Amino acid sequence: MPQNIAFGPRIRKSPFFDATQSAGVSHYSIYNKMYFPVSYGDPLAEYDRLVNGVAMWDVAVERQVKIKGPNALDLVRVLTPRNLDKITIGQGRYVPICDHRGTLINDPVLLPISQDEYWLSIADNDLILWARAIAYERKMLVDISEPDVSPLAVQGPKAKQVMIDMFGDWIEELKYFGFRYTIYNGIELFVSRSGWSKQGGYEIYLTDSRWGQHLWDAVALAGAVHGIGPGAPNYIERIESGLLSLGADTDDDTNPFELCMDKMIDLDQDLDFVGKEALKRIHSIGPARLWRGYVMDGEPFVGPNVQRWPVTVSGMPVGHVSAGAYSPRLKKNIGLGLVSSHYADSDALLVVETEHGERTAQVTRLPFDVPKAKVQATQ
Amino acid sequence: MPQNIAFGPRIRKSPFFDATQSAGVSHYSIYNKMYFPVSYGDPLAEYDRLVNGVAMWDVAVERQVKIKGPNALDLVRVLTPRNLDKITIGQGRYVPICDHRGTLINDPVLLPISQDEYWLSIADNDLILWARAIAYERKMLVDISEPDVSPLAVQGPKAKQVMIDMFGDWIEELKYFGFRYTIYNGIELFVSRSGWSKQGGYEIYLTDSRWGQHLWDAVALAGAVHGIGPGAPNYIERIESGLLSLGADTDDDTNPFELCMDKMIDLDQDLDFVGKEALKRIHSIGPARLWRGYVMDGEPFVGPNVQRWPVTVSGMPVGHVSAGAYSPRLKKNIGLGLVSSHYADSDALLVVETEHGERTAQVTRLPFDVPKAKVQATQ
Repeated sequence: MPQNIAFGPRIRKSPFFDATQSAGVSHYSIYNKMYFPVSYGDPLAEYDRLVNGVAMWDVAVERQVKIKGPNALDLVRVLTPRNLDKITIGQGRYVPICDHRGTLINDPVLLPISQDEYWLSIADNDLILWARAIAYERKMLVDISEPDVSPLAVQGPKAKQVMIDMFGDWIEELKYFGFRYTIYNGIELFVSRSGWSKQGGYEIYLTDSRWGQHLWDAVALAGAVHGIGPGAPNYIERIESGLLSLGADTDDDTNPFELCMDKMIDLDQDLDFVGKEALKRIHSIGPARLWRGYVMDGEPFVGPNVQRWPVTVSGMPVGHVSAGAYSPRLKKNIGLGLVSSHYADSDALLVVETEHGERTAQVTRLPFDVPKAKVQATQ
Repeated sequence: MPQNIAFGPRIRKSPFFDATQSAGVSHYSIYNKMYFPVSYGDPLAEYDRLVNGVAMWDVAVERQVKIKGPNALDLVRVLTPRNLDKITIGQGRYVPICDHRGTLINDPVLLPISQDEYWLSIADNDLILWARAIAYERKMLVDISEPDVSPLAVQGPKAKQVMIDMFGDWIEELKYFGFRYTIYNGIELFVSRSGWSKQGGYEIYLTDSRWGQHLWDAVALAGAVHGIGPGAPNYIERIESGLLSLGADTDDDTNPFELCMDKMIDLDQDLDFVGKEALKRIHSIGPARLWRGYVMDGEPFVGPNVQRWPVTVSGMPVGHVSAGAYSPRLKKNIGLGLVSSHYADSDALLVVETEHGERTAQVTRLPFDVPKAKVQATQ
């Protein structure tokens, strides 16, 4: 029996919804209370397009928390343990956000729009509730809202040429996470060099949802000569690249030191940022687990993991694989997850209980060492 | 092309997941980051079972925010504008939760478990982030967590007999929202007289997810003689009953006075609850919109609304229908939504732009006056 996604008014539709329907979405998830196309029915073709060509993704589910007002930067600075002394307008930055217990609760990209306006491009939870609670309890002068802003990602080695064809040579000037305001055929946009892959790419932030179909069509047209096609954040590529997926890889007690975000945590700031005391305590003890790759033996996995896989040594739990799949480029079964610090840099053979049976695994540092050359995305 | 729900480790599975799969789920949504069965493929049979018989629903998506510690009640009291002076252990209560702007951000049922432990059985958002932010910023001594607790609802006029057969005559003693701890075949449970319908019913809070299949099977077995079958919160019945669906019916600026929750808001409490100043201001001005039913003319609607329907008078927007469907018991097209206060109690004919064309509508108070007698759930 087919198990369909239910459509109704409780969950929002992206401004690219009709366009993605026409492009043939086969599978949806829901993310930030919006329908999220996650497959168009041919995972290997989508993978191939991303690593060898160019893909366009409806990532409108990356909602923005807009913080505006005299205390906007003050609020952003207490929301993250990252030092923002050198933040500049037009240059984004990845900012871990922790709660008072030191748990990572979101990991958005911060976009400094102007001196009194900042956007947080968030992962899947209600960070707007958190930001408002902190702001109002600390009596800060800010207005916090979710604007009508919806990113469309253009990802892959050929993404840059598509973007240059659409917007011009200034695309080359964007640093990683750099962004610029522009108007394209009358549509107001922010164009950012960013995206949830390591294949190079851009995100086009549409600022008026009425123009979703127009923007989608314009990208599809500009990309046609480069073989652009629809896609979504790619499960295999994100494992190869060691990209974190909040909620999939993290729990209610995962801290940024476990996730190897040490360089993004400045405990010496003279600033009462949220989680400071807890993070100091965690840092002094050292992380109990660490974020690592796994290489697993045996037959290639068919499809991604449906649930987390427990990892053991001599029957004792030492971690888990939160994402696992066969990598066509590495020609190996690989995974991501947290492992006991004791085993984080060891050669020990671990046992992983997968949905495909028991596998032997070794731990490795991230990202995986993936060959750059063009390969066929086949098993 | 079928549009499937994507299964993966980012979204959680209910402890009743396998049981509901066996029972034939046809449609899923996602709610509180958990797969939520919303249909078993025969909406009218599910409706009929709820209003004339008994249905069992996997509502594990109603996650609990557990607040425990010396300041547990203090925190709950500042989280809601409702007066909790007379709260008693074992007697639940519906508690609107507002932010500092007076917007309704959740509408859970509060379960007072013990003097230092309270659960909030929440609608679809990350209320745990909100509760933690307020608690830590106000330096309250509480621990806030999401326990391994998953409600299974038994709803409909025959629900009481099923529950008595399972648990005994004490079920009769439960007042509305009353609950009791019990052990059934070794499984620890809380049994509550509650549920998201007005057909009478109960919710069984499973406190150990390993026993999901056992509990499901036990309810199915006890209910077999009464014709129990699987179901889900019912779209048509909830409209008939005027039940609010957070997020579907509410926005980022919907306040409890608009939702006719006046009796649940005590602005005179000598207590610095969140939103007090904003709610006073809103109350002094009076609500701009009000929560009402709509009766719409024309052919019976086929299926529920997929998006909100705008409501106009002489071309001017005066409200919306956030939920609309044909009622087999009223034999009318009905809907719920917010309408300009000016039209909330008028006989004016309004125009609704539905997916089935333009319809003429009249506003009515809620709930709808549905006949109690058994009727056939057919069009």
